[in-house]
Amino acid sequence: MTDHTPTDFAALAALLADRFSTALPHRAAHGASETHITAGVPDAVCWPESTAEVAAILRFAQAHGVPVMAWGAGTSLEGHALALHGGITVNFARMAQVIEVRPEDMLARVQPGITREDLNRALRATGLFFPIDPGANATIGGMAATRASGTAAVRYGTMRDAVLGLEVVLADGTVIRTGTAAPKSSAGYDLTALMVGSEGTLGLITELTLRLHGQPEAVSAATCGFADMRAAVDCVIETMQSGLPMARIEFLDPATVAACNAHAGLDLPLIPQLMVEFHGSPASVAEQAARFGDIAAEHGCTGFRWADRAEDRSALWKMRHNAYPAILASRPGATAVVTDVCVPISQLPRAVEETAADIAASSIPGPILGHVGDGNFHAILLIDPTSKNDRAEAKRLAARMAERALRLGGTITGEHGVGFGKLGHMQAEHGAGWAVMGAVKRALDPRNILNPGKVVPLDQ
Amino acid sequence: MTDHTPTDFAALAALLADRFSTALPHRAAHGASETHITAGVPDAVCWPESTAEVAAILRFAQAHGVPVMAWGAGTSLEGHALALHGGITVNFARMAQVIEVRPEDMLARVQPGITREDLNRALRATGLFFPIDPGANATIGGMAATRASGTAAVRYGTMRDAVLGLEVVLADGTVIRTGTAAPKSSAGYDLTALMVGSEGTLGLITELTLRLHGQPEAVSAATCGFADMRAAVDCVIETMQSGLPMARIEFLDPATVAACNAHAGLDLPLIPQLMVEFHGSPASVAEQAARFGDIAAEHGCTGFRWADRAEDRSALWKMRHNAYPAILASRPGATAVVTDVCVPISQLPRAVEETAADIAASSIPGPILGHVGDGNFHAILLIDPTSKNDRAEAKRLAARMAERALRLGGTITGEHGVGFGKLGHMQAEHGAGWAVMGAVKRALDPRNILNPGKVVPLDQ
Repeated sequence: MTDHTPTDFAALAALLADRFSTALPHRAAHGASETHITAGVPDAVCWPESTAEVAAILRFAQAHGVPVMAWGAGTSLEGHALALHGGITVNFARMAQVIEVRPEDMLARVQPGITREDLNRALRATGLFFPIDPGANATIGGMAATRASGTAAVRYGTMRDAVLGLEVVLADGTVIRTGTAAPKSSAGYDLTALMVGSEGTLGLITELTLRLHGQPEAVSAATCGFADMRAAVDCVIETMQSGLPMARIEFLDPATVAACNAHAGLDLPLIPQLMVEFHGSPASVAEQAARFGDIAAEHGCTGFRWADRAEDRSALWKMRHNAYPAILASRPGATAVVTDVCVPISQLPRAVEETAADIAASSIPGPILGHVGDGNFHAILLIDPTSKNDRAEAKRLAARMAERALRLGGTITGEHGVGFGKLGHMQAEHGAGWAVMGAVKRALDPRNILNPGKVVPLDQ
Repeated sequence: MTDHTPTDFAALAALLADRFSTALPHRAAHGASETHITAGVPDAVCWPESTAEVAAILRFAQAHGVPVMAWGAGTSLEGHALALHGGITVNFARMAQVIEVRPEDMLARVQPGITREDLNRALRATGLFFPIDPGANATIGGMAATRASGTAAVRYGTMRDAVLGLEVVLADGTVIRTGTAAPKSSAGYDLTALMVGSEGTLGLITELTLRLHGQPEAVSAATCGFADMRAAVDCVIETMQSGLPMARIEFLDPATVAACNAHAGLDLPLIPQLMVEFHGSPASVAEQAARFGDIAAEHGCTGFRWADRAEDRSALWKMRHNAYPAILASRPGATAVVTDVCVPISQLPRAVEETAADIAASSIPGPILGHVGDGNFHAILLIDPTSKNDRAEAKRLAARMAERALRLGGTITGEHGVGFGKLGHMQAEHGAGWAVMGAVKRALDPRNILNPGKVVPLDQ
């Protein structure tokens, strides 16, 4: 694959009619995502309505050597879906149905374009829910492609755990089904796990079988403040080691708290805060909350605010989910460089403290928050998009975070994925394993038409 | 790769000295496994002591086009480790150390040759344990290679969930590390998951980073009998749907109960039995047990026998783990064909009942037992190894079980893996996906020296 000569899209246009477009506004809308990364407008956009249409698009692309990028909600943070070499962006907005819910098997089959909020609305009456919650209202297909996780991963796992099986269209238009509706299997290579996190570079996901969970009988949530970051993080570590089945345990530094207060009209004390949630039977939730309270008290927790009513919890997590826009709003005109590292939990205090010190010594602000029960945290580096110096500073800080994560035994990305924003750190994390990813890519997509320039080494 | 001309092993013999052997007794000991499958004596056996030695063995094998099979405890059930085309069997008995336990991160780094029982003995004082329990005292490397699970998977998952990262030696001797010590990552293709379940066909595992769990504060276990199979299985389904965090929930049919009684000197009633275990805080265990008791009563449970003391529980699970030899002993002189299917839990009653009816109508006995919380069960088909008719009957019954599992949305193997025993059903389960496995295999092992004739299509 190289930057291609102009393609005659007539056959695709004939197939898809008004669900195919080369109009600039459509192309531009699929050439930008939520972050600072801007590059990559496709030559065409299409909105397939079936697996057969996706297969036809891929057969066309394969025949013409044209890149194909999958598009969900456009909420990815590392430029995953941008068209670095032109080509066709496949928008899954018209493949957004719940195909089947099987409550007795606690699973659902869905199309990739459904968002997690729409899915959970569709599930509400079943007593089940889909727990993976990356904050953004991403599509399920996009979440699978980036191996997303979020606030509830500490209890319910990541998309790696949530996806039981897939329907995938390969580069040449072949349709495969991975996994089954059984809860486990040892029948050969785990193609489901290979596809989850492959960011559209190995195939396009056209259907997902998802593991669901029972809506908890009782839920309780709280915020609690700590004198300093270390005390909060140490409380997290001890909580996790105690085996308490935390449903959520989130960290907000004082700058994040200030931004959330301003954005949501709250008055949380401007000290490091944990946001916690407990799921279970009423007796179990009460026991968990009491045990967590004991641990928090030992680490000098300065007070709890409980949110036992559903509307209070909803407000609490809405505040957390809006932390990103809240932080953005705290520096008017700013753009965010969102970092995402994950370390072994024992290294969390060091990773967070060193990151905070780095940012404090830099010329830009960078509130810190994260899913600390997983060892995963983010600094939201706020830059003036017109300032070369700010951009360089953010790049330097982000690189130091990635290097530190690797030095402490962790990973350059806990949940956001690689896209091309993290490509420069892949060799450092994987060594010879990165070339193995390249070999797998070449085997499945020899013409390199699937999301070229992402995830694997560039010499494909 | 084809059946090779005699290889000059002098270089390997020089490298490994008395840890290399071409003596027939050594070769024969690595040419048979626990089941009816007999085929495949290697040309040589070696016992490496380091990753560097494994890499040297693979460089030698690659240069000479010689097959290489990894060997753990020899407990696999589908001929996984047998030498179908001669070659070198790599026995990991001398790479069986715990390298590091990190209690604060709830993980351990181990060499592949350690058995699960030895690992748990080494962990005892740490307050942590490794929960994956396939019954047999398999090696951790072998369990990873076959994506094993067993009795506790319903709560703690399978080897897919238990392995955080690997060191793997590839076909050409390249050493890669997959995963990190962080609990999750989105950094590219999930090579850990690709290797787990690849049965030594993509690389040889030389180190594993394992996720550990806290030893439960309280444990309670029980057996409970039901009037018929349907009532027992329906009880399992309702229990799983209720969200009870069962640690174990096993099914034994009356023939299995009879065999276990005879083998262990017990007197369990000869009706379908469930064996259950609860983990948690004392209060939580009591609550779980009470809730399970209510559900069991609704399904006509005829009585509980509780095993609250550690020694009683130990006896109970020893009885379960010895079910295989107990069943074997129930037909003197018999060999077992151990089947292993897994279906969506809603299909479990139908799958078990139809299987039982099939066996009842056949000419051979086949007690049924399984990890029914996962939808996974086994019929242990007992054949006279000298009887052609028995072999044909077992093959027919096993094929019908596999076909039924697929028809009901399940898989041909829940936990035993493919080896070459299940090769004939792979196309039916995976369709075009099986060829994708072959493409991955070719990309990573172009000379097909790694465990040839297993897992992937034979036209490699």
